[in-house]
Amino acid sequence: FNAVFAGLPVTVFETMSRLARDLGAINLGQGFPDDPGPEDVRRRAAEAVLHGSNQYPPMMGAAELRAAVAGHYGRFQGVSLDPESEVLITSGATEAIACALLALLEPGDEAVLLQPLYDAYLPLVRRAGGLPRLVSLTPPDWRLDADAIRAAVGPRTKLVLLNNPLNPAGAVYGRAELEELARALEGTDAVVVADEVWEHVVFDGRAHVSVLSVPGLAERAVKIGSAGKIFGLTGWKVGFVCAPAEILRVIARAHQFLTFTTPPNLQAAVAYGLGKEAGWFDAMRRGLQAKRDRLADGLAEAGLTPLPSAGTYFLNVDLARLGVADDAAFCERLVREAGVAAIPVSSFYAENKVTTVARFCFAKDDDTLDRAVERLAAFA
Amino acid sequence: FNAVFAGLPVTVFETMSRLARDLGAINLGQGFPDDPGPEDVRRRAAEAVLHGSNQYPPMMGAAELRAAVAGHYGRFQGVSLDPESEVLITSGATEAIACALLALLEPGDEAVLLQPLYDAYLPLVRRAGGLPRLVSLTPPDWRLDADAIRAAVGPRTKLVLLNNPLNPAGAVYGRAELEELARALEGTDAVVVADEVWEHVVFDGRAHVSVLSVPGLAERAVKIGSAGKIFGLTGWKVGFVCAPAEILRVIARAHQFLTFTTPPNLQAAVAYGLGKEAGWFDAMRRGLQAKRDRLADGLAEAGLTPLPSAGTYFLNVDLARLGVADDAAFCERLVREAGVAAIPVSSFYAENKVTTVARFCFAKDDDTLDRAVERLAAFA
Ligand SMILES: CSCCC(=O)C(=O)O
Ligand SMILES: CSCCC(=O)C(=O)O
Repeated sequence: FNAVFAGLPVTVFETMSRLARDLGAINLGQGFPDDPGPEDVRRRAAEAVLHGSNQYPPMMGAAELRAAVAGHYGRFQGVSLDPESEVLITSGATEAIACALLALLEPGDEAVLLQPLYDAYLPLVRRAGGLPRLVSLTPPDWRLDADAIRAAVGPRTKLVLLNNPLNPAGAVYGRAELEELARALEGTDAVVVADEVWEHVVFDGRAHVSVLSVPGLAERAVKIGSAGKIFGLTGWKVGFVCAPAEILRVIARAHQFLTFTTPPNLQAAVAYGLGKEAGWFDAMRRGLQAKRDRLADGLAEAGLTPLPSAGTYFLNVDLARLGVADDAAFCERLVREAGVAAIPVSSFYAENKVTTVARFCFAKDDDTLDRAVERLAAFA
Repeated sequence: FNAVFAGLPVTVFETMSRLARDLGAINLGQGFPDDPGPEDVRRRAAEAVLHGSNQYPPMMGAAELRAAVAGHYGRFQGVSLDPESEVLITSGATEAIACALLALLEPGDEAVLLQPLYDAYLPLVRRAGGLPRLVSLTPPDWRLDADAIRAAVGPRTKLVLLNNPLNPAGAVYGRAELEELARALEGTDAVVVADEVWEHVVFDGRAHVSVLSVPGLAERAVKIGSAGKIFGLTGWKVGFVCAPAEILRVIARAHQFLTFTTPPNLQAAVAYGLGKEAGWFDAMRRGLQAKRDRLADGLAEAGLTPLPSAGTYFLNVDLARLGVADDAAFCERLVREAGVAAIPVSSFYAENKVTTVARFCFAKDDDTLDRAVERLAAFA
């Protein structure tokens, strides 16, 4: 069998969720909300499955959704995208990343990846025949180190993969940092694959800056978004890719043979949802920010020091303060003994692991957060 | 960019559907039904999206759907599958095929493929680093040539990819032929990847024989099914893989990074649908068989000689009888001048092309079929 896949374990998210289910633990591991998601958006999906077409939509995505994606980024990023040639709909952001990596990399090409990295990136780069070049970011500030990126980029670099906002760090990189990245890539042909699935989940008045809006990156950018993250409907698996037409064309060829298309009723509902007014997104952010603060306060009271979180569903705890040096063993004890599932941040590293951080998902009912904090306080 | 994907055109199905839309032609090209699909199954999906969870289901698939798949093949194939370790849910059969090929093939492994072949197979084998070995089947009977397969299998063969019932041929291979295939593979380690998405669409009293039920194949079989084809809801993109646990484990690793999971409301609805009684599937088959006969009669009257169709949504026309030697040019004229889209069967061949067959989809309203026949008669 294929060595890349045969050698892999089940993802840490799946393993932790299963453990939480089996042990009856409170699941602050895998990133999904307790909230059922916007009722109007779900109602659209229900109506479309009853009254709309359930047959193959166009391979590139339903025209109304591609237009809605372009319109959405027009409103929120001030960019102008051609829905016909610069927008592709995929079966979730994971498929989008798989398509991009399989379409862009030739065996032997180098891919610069930043650690901590989402667990799909490295196996997909390897399965595509790419050679990973890892750059490490570290707590507490997870600074985007443009010099380290510059040092990792060489004549065989085909792409740089950026996740912003950064899961699990909760870091959000702004215009200045992205402009520095653009300068670091000047004179290279490297594509920037930007996993921006957490784009709407940013706090404390921040506005997400997409690679699409940064000169020097936009022309080389493959921007990936996720309706599942935007609307808190993580099971829907509706993703988008925005890229210059000549890059998107090749990514669409991979998509046509990885899934071909995405359920039309969910596409229709997402098209509707992306048209919501700015106030809806603000309210969603405010709600999540309050949960972040609730969990941060609770953790601090329980003696667990939280690190800052500027975005995503996640808050990290600095285990070094507790004298803990093995986050995986700590999370294993936590789920079994405290009855709370969290994710060890070391599982986002392939080398030079940071092993002193545990990640908690705060997109949960207040009551769930409070009960988790109680359990953690009792355990600590 | 990656040479395999960068060099590919848009699929013939997508191109023909778009041409049909743009020209206002009757679309008998891409295989999808006019029928809206079973209302009760769609209602389940609507209810689940409103009242069920819309968050990540388990990566291997919802437990109820995996149990329903195992139960379904228990009833219809008399086989016993462990839903926990031998069933995987994917985002359509295309994703299932991609997972299987990316998980099983190491660069340099050989894959035996039978022509005519579905357009995804060859690019996926190549992208996986596999070396295709093509065996050609030919009209009018598309006989499964076990000797030719035996000759193509060698020490580096990792897998044989079989599509049964065979799209676009409309051929259905029975137990005797599958047993012959089993004998041809005796003493080899080759896996049989069986794309059986048309399993329920077989006519004239035939019963589909799955590789799962054939000793000598079952132990090496990766069986792929599709709810989209079973229920005529081609946009749903819910597929299944059934395989021995040690093979399925590796395929699931690919799945976890290609899409990770599949919308839970559609999984719930498919789980319900797979439990329908045998009579429902019989009625579906009878309805499609009547459409096959309606189109066959109409084509014959219009002077277009249909070839036999034992299964699938498709009926082929023997263009050689018309003195036509270029099916692609013929289909191009047909959509533009007759206003009927069909698929040239040559697009299912990579070499030694059969160029004298055009494929028509009959899963359409009677009225649509009649209008298409009228146009074809006027054209012929
Ligand atoms: C696909 S499961 C992982 C979900 C997620 O984004 C996370 O928990 O980090
Ligand atoms: C994914 S589009 C092709 C659908 C189909 O099975 C066919 O028309 O052969």
